[in-house]
Amino acid sequence: MSENVVTMEKIVNLCKRRGFVFQSSEIYGGLNSCWDYGPLGIELKRNVKDAWWRDTVVSRPDVVGLDASILMHPRVWEASGHLSNFTDPMVDCKLCKARFRADHIQDSVCPQKPSKRPGECDGELTEARNFNLMFRTNMGPVEETGSEVYLRPETAQGIFVNFVNVVNSARMRPPFGIAQMGKSFRNEITPGNFLFRTREFEQMELEYFVKPGDDDDWYEYWRKRRMAWYTDYGIKPDNLRLREHASDELAHYAKGCVDVEYNFPIGWQELEGVANRTDFDLKSHMDTSGKDLRFFDDGSKERYVPYVIEPSAGADRSTLAFLVDAYDEDGPEDDRRVVLRLHPALAPVKVAVLPLMRKGGLPEKATELVETLRPHMATAYDQAGSIGRRYRRQDEIGTPFGITIDYQTLDDDTVTLRERDSMEQTRVAVKDLLPQLTQRIAPPVCDIPLGPNRHQN
Amino acid sequence: MSENVVTMEKIVNLCKRRGFVFQSSEIYGGLNSCWDYGPLGIELKRNVKDAWWRDTVVSRPDVVGLDASILMHPRVWEASGHLSNFTDPMVDCKLCKARFRADHIQDSVCPQKPSKRPGECDGELTEARNFNLMFRTNMGPVEETGSEVYLRPETAQGIFVNFVNVVNSARMRPPFGIAQMGKSFRNEITPGNFLFRTREFEQMELEYFVKPGDDDDWYEYWRKRRMAWYTDYGIKPDNLRLREHASDELAHYAKGCVDVEYNFPIGWQELEGVANRTDFDLKSHMDTSGKDLRFFDDGSKERYVPYVIEPSAGADRSTLAFLVDAYDEDGPEDDRRVVLRLHPALAPVKVAVLPLMRKGGLPEKATELVETLRPHMATAYDQAGSIGRRYRRQDEIGTPFGITIDYQTLDDDTVTLRERDSMEQTRVAVKDLLPQLTQRIAPPVCDIPLGPNRHQN
Repeated sequence: MSENVVTMEKIVNLCKRRGFVFQSSEIYGGLNSCWDYGPLGIELKRNVKDAWWRDTVVSRPDVVGLDASILMHPRVWEASGHLSNFTDPMVDCKLCKARFRADHIQDSVCPQKPSKRPGECDGELTEARNFNLMFRTNMGPVEETGSEVYLRPETAQGIFVNFVNVVNSARMRPPFGIAQMGKSFRNEITPGNFLFRTREFEQMELEYFVKPGDDDDWYEYWRKRRMAWYTDYGIKPDNLRLREHASDELAHYAKGCVDVEYNFPIGWQELEGVANRTDFDLKSHMDTSGKDLRFFDDGSKERYVPYVIEPSAGADRSTLAFLVDAYDEDGPEDDRRVVLRLHPALAPVKVAVLPLMRKGGLPEKATELVETLRPHMATAYDQAGSIGRRYRRQDEIGTPFGITIDYQTLDDDTVTLRERDSMEQTRVAVKDLLPQLTQRIAPPVCDIPLGPNRHQN
Repeated sequence: MSENVVTMEKIVNLCKRRGFVFQSSEIYGGLNSCWDYGPLGIELKRNVKDAWWRDTVVSRPDVVGLDASILMHPRVWEASGHLSNFTDPMVDCKLCKARFRADHIQDSVCPQKPSKRPGECDGELTEARNFNLMFRTNMGPVEETGSEVYLRPETAQGIFVNFVNVVNSARMRPPFGIAQMGKSFRNEITPGNFLFRTREFEQMELEYFVKPGDDDDWYEYWRKRRMAWYTDYGIKPDNLRLREHASDELAHYAKGCVDVEYNFPIGWQELEGVANRTDFDLKSHMDTSGKDLRFFDDGSKERYVPYVIEPSAGADRSTLAFLVDAYDEDGPEDDRRVVLRLHPALAPVKVAVLPLMRKGGLPEKATELVETLRPHMATAYDQAGSIGRRYRRQDEIGTPFGITIDYQTLDDDTVTLRERDSMEQTRVAVKDLLPQLTQRIAPPVCDIPLGPNRHQN
């Protein structure tokens, strides 16, 4: 294996050292599978989420946003099936009491003898039992059955229960979508792999409502459009694939489902699912709530329950995928550099302004430039250490542009503009910097239209 | 009372009707004190949060962001004092079993006889007992004491436990701040008043670390700067006041605390607190974790625990205050209009494009303009109903600008630009629209400098 291979360990180390991601409550020994985004991590994740929101909501006349609360009425989970079906089968070792997912037993290790598989501490395993993955808590001052509520295991249900409110207040009609980003919680038995599988995580979900019959076209459409989002923002197409669910893998209500998978250091894993959920969710909520959730088409006078196409992505997984995909090491062996080749629109810092020397009016000139750029883009200032070392520090966090202020700057008001990936340096007039940089950090525009051909307005 | 008075009822109705805020899980009868942001509400709240982030983080070289997880190690709450002290005194009615906050008993009503005060159903009240306001849940597959965790009751502790990680990775030195926005949860006994007091809510907190001795200046500074934020974004100064805590009202560790209060329809209530928390939090975490959380000043070779100034605001309360403050009714009695005079930077929709007629090429011309504007600002298109009615629809949701496309537009490429507050209409060339609008929706720039005079770099 070449030293240049991206490992999860390299990513975790970089994340901690440069302030992308820290272990939660680290001073107390950490909290299993919980992570905190540091100063650079939160800006990267904000950029990922903004990119999704821009592509999915802001740029489209047919999608509106929603932000439902994490705590919802318990009957929501009765209707959605989570109360009865959102379970993992679990087995216990009768000897060492360790607990494992029955369906992952082949990949688990005995905590007593980590080289061995469960049960190989010579303990006997119990029969598999179902364990509900929802976090339960009590609302209100009394702990009794009636006050039990759950932390939502997905944001999607917040959309379904608000379907009529949105149709009425925002005057939407199929085909249209409701999008939501937010935290969800799943009490996974075996979380792990850094940001990949955590018990607290953030989703980016779109429920796109269409007339039954139009669903196959829209299902095709959203598969394509979502793949394009990842590659538009820089994921290498070779590291991305669509995996169609086999018919025996499909949920009973789903007509089709495909996983967008990314080639993580731990192997190909799901980044996002795109599913044709039919009219299952709205119908379930109609049955359970007794409310009419059908859409009334005042043109055709039809009343129907729309079908739903659901692209459901993980914000933390996407952030991790963008980090992993951007990670690179280059240069000769005795002078390696680590560089994050992040898309400029995702990079937490867009430009670093570096005075060549810490004297002769250069820091003042640099500070002046920082003040000009900062209202328009995330701008860093660094005067500590050699210029080469400062470039490397910026490369490692993915800053696409470096600007060096030298003595010539004081004469002719030009600077050196260095590009992260090519390391090319060009001389640019200060007055041209803002328009040039603004253009080069702009978000990509998706070249897939707003809908399948025959549905376009 | 004049009909023109803003009541909470008017706000709640407008919010539901136009899609700002819906009751959570409404089709199941709602979930007490939980609310969902609809299509317009989420954009308004996003704008409020972005405004805070821009003013507090992005525009300042001395503040970085953080996003800690909601679930934290239980010992965090031991150190912070929440496990033992974050309680409300509670009394029960022995007859009707209702439960009340002992310190709010004068303002509570008996649920059996709503016209009466607690106990007046002739029931006797129990002695007051303490009730911890943190939501408790279990993490991991087994429900046992060791797996108990809490939903954070404030975001601040996520900042304190990451203090050293941020100092080291982001190379910050006092005076500097760490800012965080995110959900917190408090199991309030008596939530209420719409978005004002909810059990799930979002905070915007800054912990600003300074050298002991500099704390009084920075405390003064942040009081001023935070007041300015509200008025810069349009809150009427008359509806805002600072209320200094009396010495017997102060937490034992606080050297000073002031509430930013807003004149809500329910009276003057806290929007934000600005406190000088001294070195209490970092010291408590040092004691409990055994980790050294002091800052080492490599210039003076001093090692010290910084003092903390904390401006802590509520994102939902701020959003509600901006809504209430913007709400207005004007015009003659037989032709009232409801208008939200939101700051253009906060308005969920910046501009509405309205073809005068639904024919003659006007909708096509309007759609073309929408496509030009949409990448730059939230743009609506509306062709349904009379032009007057369409203006009113936009006034009611706070859209600062309306553009009407008429037959003259097809001739000379000019449009009518209507301003929401004055209702003035001017003729503007299409080519001048984007620069003019961009300038008029720009966020305000705070005229308070980056620090108290003698601390400025």
